[in-house]
Amino acid sequence: MPLNSEQQAEIDEQRAASAETRRATVPAIEEILYQALPVLDHGFVRVVDYMGDDAAIVQAARVSYGRGTRRVQDDAGLIDYLMRHRHSTPFEMCEIKYHVKLPIFVARQWIRHRTANVNEYSARYSVLDREYYLPAPEHLAAQSASNRQGRGEALSAEHAQYVLQLLRDDAERCYAHYEEMLDPDGVGLARELARIDLTLATYTQWYWKIDLHNLFHFLSLRADAHAQFEIRAYAEPMLETVRRWVPLAYAAFTKNRLGAVTLSAPALAVVKRMLAGDSVAQLDSGLSPREWRELMAAIGRSG
Amino acid sequence: MPLNSEQQAEIDEQRAASAETRRATVPAIEEILYQALPVLDHGFVRVVDYMGDDAAIVQAARVSYGRGTRRVQDDAGLIDYLMRHRHSTPFEMCEIKYHVKLPIFVARQWIRHRTANVNEYSARYSVLDREYYLPAPEHLAAQSASNRQGRGEALSAEHAQYVLQLLRDDAERCYAHYEEMLDPDGVGLARELARIDLTLATYTQWYWKIDLHNLFHFLSLRADAHAQFEIRAYAEPMLETVRRWVPLAYAAFTKNRLGAVTLSAPALAVVKRMLAGDSVAQLDSGLSPREWRELMAAIGRSG
Amino acid sequence: MPLNSEQQAEIDEQRAASAETRRATVPAIEEILYQALPVLDHGFVRVVDYMGDDAAIVQAARVSYGRGTRRVQDDAGLIDYLMRHRHSTPFEMCEIKYHVKLPIFVARQWIRHRTANVNEYSARYSVLDREYYLPAPEHLAAQSASNRQGRGEALSAEHAQYVLQLLRDDAERCYAHYEEMLDPDGVGLARELARIDLTLATYTQWYWKIDLHNLFHFLSLRADAHAQFEIRAYAEPMLETVRRWVPLAYAAFTKNRLGAVTLSAPALAVVKRMLAGDSVAQLDSGLSPREWRELMAAIGRSG
Amino acid sequence: MPLNSEQQAEIDEQRAASAETRRATVPAIEEILYQALPVLDHGFVRVVDYMGDDAAIVQAARVSYGRGTRRVQDDAGLIDYLMRHRHSTPFEMCEIKYHVKLPIFVARQWIRHRTANVNEYSARYSVLDREYYLPAPEHLAAQSASNRQGRGEALSAEHAQYVLQLLRDDAERCYAHYEEMLDPDGVGLARELARIDLTLATYTQWYWKIDLHNLFHFLSLRADAHAQFEIRAYAEPMLETVRRWVPLAYAAFTKNRLGAVTLSAPALAVVKRMLAGDSVAQLDSGLSPREWRELMAAIGRSG
Repeated sequence: MPLNSEQQAEIDEQRAASAETRRATVPAIEEILYQALPVLDHGFVRVVDYMGDDAAIVQAARVSYGRGTRRVQDDAGLIDYLMRHRHSTPFEMCEIKYHVKLPIFVARQWIRHRTANVNEYSARYSVLDREYYLPAPEHLAAQSASNRQGRGEALSAEHAQYVLQLLRDDAERCYAHYEEMLDPDGVGLARELARIDLTLATYTQWYWKIDLHNLFHFLSLRADAHAQFEIRAYAEPMLETVRRWVPLAYAAFTKNRLGAVTLSAPALAVVKRMLAGDSVAQLDSGLSPREWRELMAAIGRSG
Repeated sequence: MPLNSEQQAEIDEQRAASAETRRATVPAIEEILYQALPVLDHGFVRVVDYMGDDAAIVQAARVSYGRGTRRVQDDAGLIDYLMRHRHSTPFEMCEIKYHVKLPIFVARQWIRHRTANVNEYSARYSVLDREYYLPAPEHLAAQSASNRQGRGEALSAEHAQYVLQLLRDDAERCYAHYEEMLDPDGVGLARELARIDLTLATYTQWYWKIDLHNLFHFLSLRADAHAQFEIRAYAEPMLETVRRWVPLAYAAFTKNRLGAVTLSAPALAVVKRMLAGDSVAQLDSGLSPREWRELMAAIGRSG
Repeated sequence: MPLNSEQQAEIDEQRAASAETRRATVPAIEEILYQALPVLDHGFVRVVDYMGDDAAIVQAARVSYGRGTRRVQDDAGLIDYLMRHRHSTPFEMCEIKYHVKLPIFVARQWIRHRTANVNEYSARYSVLDREYYLPAPEHLAAQSASNRQGRGEALSAEHAQYVLQLLRDDAERCYAHYEEMLDPDGVGLARELARIDLTLATYTQWYWKIDLHNLFHFLSLRADAHAQFEIRAYAEPMLETVRRWVPLAYAAFTKNRLGAVTLSAPALAVVKRMLAGDSVAQLDSGLSPREWRELMAAIGRSG
Repeated sequence: MPLNSEQQAEIDEQRAASAETRRATVPAIEEILYQALPVLDHGFVRVVDYMGDDAAIVQAARVSYGRGTRRVQDDAGLIDYLMRHRHSTPFEMCEIKYHVKLPIFVARQWIRHRTANVNEYSARYSVLDREYYLPAPEHLAAQSASNRQGRGEALSAEHAQYVLQLLRDDAERCYAHYEEMLDPDGVGLARELARIDLTLATYTQWYWKIDLHNLFHFLSLRADAHAQFEIRAYAEPMLETVRRWVPLAYAAFTKNRLGAVTLSAPALAVVKRMLAGDSVAQLDSGLSPREWRELMAAIGRSG
């Protein structure tokens, strides 16, 4: 359970309050505002604020005085056009703020996206909770043989149990030592030092704020099949928050980015030859074996 | 008058609508939301959206689950502390969006601030209005003799009249030629080419979105006495919008940044000697004449 | 001619000097270092410094202690892989600095790329030269009928002459007034004010520094057929400087970005159907007429 | 010892090679190029490339065609002026690249500086070495009583020994389990999962590239007495690399930033009253007790 009752009460209190505003407001995202969407075993992601809506994208693209919007169909067409042609600046006019609780090793991947604002819980200043990530047994997998940075087959039940036991014991022991070192009636070690004994599975949390263009970039990398499962687990509910917030932009993103493929110059040449009725094989394609496999997968050929 | 009646009607319509929201809401900024605050002869700045409030700064600094706020006095103290010690990330959690109409030469200074989002009205895509900046006679000044990038004395009335005549004639003539070249029944020149005949006094407009930390940085440079008058003219009403929006952060900014001075190591040494009762002269101060003047001005000494 | 003899002498002097360095050095870019490559009628772009080479990309991707490089063939393969899979950070490890002279309206498009460092010649501090852009007659074109932000047919010779006359006269008159207003024995107007009378065709100049990843992004937008001719005129010699500097990265960029196409989800579905032997028409394609035309153009079909 | 003999050989090989270049070259930084400067028990920082020198700052500030430089004294004065008045863009024209080996908890503080380029060694792709940070006994300190994010007194010898034993045992045990879980003849767990069992004391490494302006910002925060000792340990040799590289900029930074103090508006008012001969006490100063202590410390008064 990611929240204790005090935290849940604070959230409930905030959800109960409301005010009048002249700003662009989106009921579907208001509905889940502040709610913690659970991720992994102790994590969550929750939307704590947002600025703008689909119409704000249109408004900025047109630099208009009012809503800038005409019929929904026109807005959808314009937003799709902007996405397709990578006119990214109108999407930067929408902003969203999340509160995220996540294991430190996930936080280290996440923070590589630099065009965002972050306030992380400080373990120099405060004591971290006894919470660490323990994968579900079905997510414990062997090193992939074909992909140096991926997972292969699931571990056997025995191996999985063995690994979980090691991970749990190490996390527990390290946390117990952390607490012991901090104890002001004992050693009383400085927090900034004691924390170095914790494992990378320990949960941290942060406020993270980003504009919609950069969020789409983040999601296109982190909702991708090549991303590590544990960060994808965050990207997925975030995609759903975006769908609620800016449904037209979300549709354009799904169509033109998530579901799209890019063909390199030689891959395009292969497709053109195939469309012209040529039979093309990897050896005479100008593509490496790996590129050939990637292309065949993209166009749904067995290769 | 910066707005025509159609634009004013669009703004009025947007001001008339309101909705319920669970988000942090600030009545004092809602009050002026969408309103065009006039600047220079045809320009304006208007707030078109905002995210967060003073409590959001506190909330992010504490990475809290609820409002994060306690008593107003505590929040004020924390915000002042964050500003004084340059803990900038909590201020990045607030975001504001402006619609600005401004002369191109001002836009060129403004855009140098890179950590912001911009959508500018496109003169490749649309036709610019016949609007150009003409300084008020009292703002026409001679080149400063002492400061290579500043203004000195006001021009004489005759000189001012002469300059205004030149500026007005050139702007009018160039705009008339712009229109003539664009005329589809005449030359029909491409918009992206015709615009190159306009002067730098021509007004453009954009949507500009920025977080509070970077806005403070912008304002500390652009509300400064060394900034060109025409960009200061924008910074001043923007300061007022910030005061309405986040009064505690604004107070901390005024106290610790706008009204503060930085003493270099040798300037600090001079102040220490003076406080110890030494009489210090520029020659034995370790400061250059210019630094000496800057220090004397800062500490209110005649020098 | 973009350079006067004094400027050329300064450049020649700098080209004549050399030193020993342990840094990664690329003879093909050294060869043209500091040289002004002419662009448009008075502009230029010249490389004034660079950091890194193809091996530096490999070195960063591997976080190695030495050159990180193995055989050229391996490096080429790794760089192509990084580019294809949008692993952008190793490309950020190379940096280049240009000195560019360009018309103000081009500078205004250019500066929209924010992830770069810029120092522009200050017209508050110094006086601009009497240099303005006048298009070659063959580049004067009518507004495109089909593309709201593009050029269509070339103007007739008469119309072209007429337009050039207007542009030249306005630029000359405005510059003459600029000089007159500045004259310290006359009005002596502040430089920061006098400049507002100049047209957008006036040349400015700047130092511009950027990493290779962001340069590729700039070039993919600005060497594109949709970019305005006058900025493409800069992108082209810049592409050539990149080819000299990092030939493997340049090849990967050409193959996977410049010459690539992205197929949206429905466009990909159309291609799959076509490859399966279906005959597909726009009406049953799921694509809008515009998307259909774009796809047919991309895959070399008449549509 | 931070380097093994193979790594040292790679570095020596790179140091032995040299080439002719027309670029700005700085012998004092060339002298230490590629050398690992040891930090903490297993870390290092080494300069692997640089672009520009003091003259490049001057050159960019003047947007000049040649070196832009006059007499050393003039350059020093201009650079000091630029630093004093926070004209930051000319300093952005110099760039430096480091290779750093550092504990993960230090990396997590470091990465918060977003305006830099980073390539980190990937523990998804490769196996981390058995290297973890163990503080020297004299750096083990108790939590500060007065400063929530600082250290107070050193631990007693017994407590220090006890803490070191815990930290060593936990790091060793976690690393042993990491290796065991990775063993392809045993469990063969995916690298991206096995690493989560490591502690935050584990060393990682990265290539880190930054411009001089942002490096000064980083150093002003991380060489500060409020920074955690373990990141200051990196900032200090980095300051020395900057002193070798751009001595004039370094002097200006030391004088106007590192050794400077900023007085808030009320603190300035207090200093003015004191200079006028008033005796001021905290209670009538307009400053909080904490601000009063900070001011007295800054101006060298006992308070």
